Amino acid sequence: MKKIEHIGIAVKNLETSNTLYETLLGTPPYKTEEVLSEGVRTSFFRVGDSKIELLEALNDESPIAKFLEKRGEGVHHIAFAVDDIEAEVGRLTSEGFRVLNETPKSGADNKRVVFLHPKSTGGVLVELCQEIS
Amino acid sequence: MKKIEHIGIAVKNLETSNTLYETLLGTPPYKTEEVLSEGVRTSFFRVGDSKIELLEALNDESPIAKFLEKRGEGVHHIAFAVDDIEAEVGRLTSEGFRVLNETPKSGADNKRVVFLHPKSTGGVLVELCQEIS
Repeated sequence: MKKIEHIGIAVKNLETSNTLYETLLGTPPYKTEEVLSEGVRTSFFRVGDSKIELLEALNDESPIAKFLEKRGEGVHHIAFAVDDIEAEVGRLTSEGFRVLNETPKSGADNKRVVFLHPKSTGGVLVELCQEIS
Repeated sequence: MKKIEHIGIAVKNLETSNTLYETLLGTPPYKTEEVLSEGVRTSFFRVGDSKIELLEALNDESPIAKFLEKRGEGVHHIAFAVDDIEAEVGRLTSEGFRVLNETPKSGADNKRVVFLHPKSTGGVLVELCQEIS
């Protein structure tokens, strides 16, 4: 893994949380983006070489809606940047890690992403992401 | 905030999780350290300019033991590096954030740390940390 690309945080209301995190981090979000396939609206803040991503559910079927119902607001996933997502998925599955999607899918912020199942990563939802060049 | 200094992850067994995270991250932990005042044993992995910290409870009174009982294994806190922790605590408390300890205390990995109350940070336990020079 090259670096922590971002930390995804589930929030109930993106506007309210944008204000909160802008004050906390001392910087405004640099973009807001809807990912309709995931049923989320997101915003991104730069912190050093990484980002904080806030995620709001667009509908009740969104994984974020389900997460909020079960756990409340808080850290939803950790995303690591990789250079070659297919190679990394191959390496990790051969080591026994389970993926939620074998084929990379389009994520927010111009990325191809694969999620690892939290049951195989000690309770942490891990996202691998490769920048689309 | 300068950068994500580390992400703290609560684990049941440090040895088991060290093996898991070494495989996941592709790098071994660079150190293990006990913080008796917090009742934890920790290990650290470098990922880019940040770290992953695993935390195991040393006793039943440890905050990590309580977290594991309530939530199971998973992300426990996010730590941000700051240059001047007193100034940052002053700024954040004046903005309405609540701190768990007003005076910085000694944390793992040669740091002075202050925790913000998750109720004031949207469900995320936030640690501010300044390197002891």
